[in-house]
Amino acid sequence: MSVNLSAPDPKTIFPVQGVELGTACAGIRKAGRRDVMVMRFCRGAKAAGVFTQNRFAAAPVRICREHQTMTREIRALVVNTGVANAGTGEAGLNDARLTTQKLAALAGCPVEETLVFSTGVIMEPLPMQRLLPGLDAAWGDLSGQHWLEAAQAIMTTDTVHKAASTKAFIGGKVVTVTGISKGSGMIEPRMATMLGFIATDAAVSGDVLRAIVKRAADASFNRITVDGDTSTNDSFVLIATGASGMDCIDSVEDARCEALYEAVATVAGKLARSMIRDGEGATKFITIRVDGALTQSEALKVCYAVAHSPLVKTAFFASDPNLGRILAAVGNSRIEDLDSSRVSLWLDDVQVAVNGGRHPDYKEEDGVAVMSKPEILVRIDLGRGTHSETVWTTDLSHEYVKINAEYRS
Amino acid sequence: MSVNLSAPDPKTIFPVQGVELGTACAGIRKAGRRDVMVMRFCRGAKAAGVFTQNRFAAAPVRICREHQTMTREIRALVVNTGVANAGTGEAGLNDARLTTQKLAALAGCPVEETLVFSTGVIMEPLPMQRLLPGLDAAWGDLSGQHWLEAAQAIMTTDTVHKAASTKAFIGGKVVTVTGISKGSGMIEPRMATMLGFIATDAAVSGDVLRAIVKRAADASFNRITVDGDTSTNDSFVLIATGASGMDCIDSVEDARCEALYEAVATVAGKLARSMIRDGEGATKFITIRVDGALTQSEALKVCYAVAHSPLVKTAFFASDPNLGRILAAVGNSRIEDLDSSRVSLWLDDVQVAVNGGRHPDYKEEDGVAVMSKPEILVRIDLGRGTHSETVWTTDLSHEYVKINAEYRS
Repeated sequence: MSVNLSAPDPKTIFPVQGVELGTACAGIRKAGRRDVMVMRFCRGAKAAGVFTQNRFAAAPVRICREHQTMTREIRALVVNTGVANAGTGEAGLNDARLTTQKLAALAGCPVEETLVFSTGVIMEPLPMQRLLPGLDAAWGDLSGQHWLEAAQAIMTTDTVHKAASTKAFIGGKVVTVTGISKGSGMIEPRMATMLGFIATDAAVSGDVLRAIVKRAADASFNRITVDGDTSTNDSFVLIATGASGMDCIDSVEDARCEALYEAVATVAGKLARSMIRDGEGATKFITIRVDGALTQSEALKVCYAVAHSPLVKTAFFASDPNLGRILAAVGNSRIEDLDSSRVSLWLDDVQVAVNGGRHPDYKEEDGVAVMSKPEILVRIDLGRGTHSETVWTTDLSHEYVKINAEYRS
Repeated sequence: MSVNLSAPDPKTIFPVQGVELGTACAGIRKAGRRDVMVMRFCRGAKAAGVFTQNRFAAAPVRICREHQTMTREIRALVVNTGVANAGTGEAGLNDARLTTQKLAALAGCPVEETLVFSTGVIMEPLPMQRLLPGLDAAWGDLSGQHWLEAAQAIMTTDTVHKAASTKAFIGGKVVTVTGISKGSGMIEPRMATMLGFIATDAAVSGDVLRAIVKRAADASFNRITVDGDTSTNDSFVLIATGASGMDCIDSVEDARCEALYEAVATVAGKLARSMIRDGEGATKFITIRVDGALTQSEALKVCYAVAHSPLVKTAFFASDPNLGRILAAVGNSRIEDLDSSRVSLWLDDVQVAVNGGRHPDYKEEDGVAVMSKPEILVRIDLGRGTHSETVWTTDLSHEYVKINAEYRS
């Protein structure tokens, strides 16, 4: 089940100079599915990442953070699905370390120039006897053309693989930005709570890359939510190979930085919205926009209070304009001095509430008409200030419960 | 669907001197069901309440707050189900005021000695042309014996009516405490998010009553959660008629105050746990206990992070010991300096995790055995301090989605 989402057209996904990808079926958790993916980068490539804020961060996330404190250089990364290597204590850290040592040996680089990612079931040990041969096999499969196979290899409960790509003319050079991501549940805004890998052949310093990855995450992966849970593993990494031959962007003041940011944000935004369209059990794609807030963070609070309310989400699933639930969620957003009598609510172009109550012209059939669409804009005006925020989310369906109840079976 | 919950045995529900109750079928939203309930109290009765913290507090909640600032005296209250009179603006406030004026006329008391409560669909107008005659009919039905009928009249999605009662020997007098409540969804801990009415024939000053109602709410209704949503309407009111003839308890230092608190907390706790057993779609009754926290509020945060996680709740529904999800929820409780390597986890007596990872002796079949029970204790030790908290919650089932998707149909 997904909302207006189809597999990416291979013709629209451009290879990135200096990047090769390989996949393998290692049988990590289930036989016969691609579950290991590696990426190799040319010499001089740099990486910057943002990682989960969950205090039970998985072993691979800890290793990535460790490596990122030592260097921004990157020559290779590896991802496995099936087992998250989280809640696995010291043994899990050792497994993640062993994996990066093996990868560094294959890539012929220092271990800190590798990154490692896992996603899947928590608190189960990584089957190293299957992962390490899988890593070998994936390495043997490396090719610059394998973006879509890589996108498939990192899927868990996703129903469609996710990839996006763009080209931009930056400082006289054509630059490519291509990314893949996975995630259809456990996607929450505290951070890039999913796996996402975006690569570009632009040349960028480590500091500039770090600034771009944070800003792009805030405009994309940090504005989507399915169930409010924050995963132990999820990560978003941006890699710049420099292979386009452009002069390095050393400063965020460089005009080319903004152009590159726009291209990265375009790809990240497409991936993020694809993840919501493929949200677990999603039957609706819902955009929640809050206007008239005193501050940006207040606007976000209200967006999330509405996006996370199980009562709002089940009403959307039922296509039932039980819209008082949206007002109740706004009232539940913990803005202590919120004056409900200044709140207005629209569903697409239909004004539902004004001055905190039902709009005199609002008719139930107009609400029904909007609620039955697959894509809906909820707009809330708090009548307090000038700040706005937007968050994308899904409904809560029978299928969500089914998928999550049966996840391990 | 409910978990080990049966209707209260009429023999165990004791009338309270000075309290009469009446009900009527007013057809507020559906024909042929009891949907209006009134209570009449003898002269000298006092009330103290705690009310929702939702900023879209319903009109009746606003009126109650207003009346409570004017007096603690109470002679009558009225409850309707079907329509919440929330998100109804000025018109809703007028409807609630008219209702209390009618009630005050019936009771022959000043309007501020009445309270009014509504529960049901938000943002729909109260059908006053049916409510007011219903109020008359319910008033004509008053009797000290009608506790169970009253409990039935305030139900919404409840499958079983809820009442509890106890007698205590306090300062040489036998005192009765009897209560009813409704609520099976939208029950969240920020306040007594449900409707609950507990009456006693003890004699208590307004200040002491207020202290007792807050403490009892914190030990009962504020420790249960179904879906994390906070309702616009929910309220818990404690009434003391003084009709037992005991000397008035004027101070919380009075030793009798503690005895009365215990009796009230016993009744409130029974009602609260009944509400969880009857939680929307509940198939499991789950107790979450957090030990070893640095502070009380930290322990509560972790309780709620676990209790609110849709992934934890669906795993319980599936009886699947996918227990890493509990660790992930602990990690997601926003305790910034939590050291996951000190966290331990038990399911009933089965130790699942130690030092933040799987316990070496933990076997999947032991987890399965506990998970398949209808009542489960989840115990988490944070290894940081000496504070503990307990919260009661349910699983998240297909039925929850069904009930909430079809609520208005």
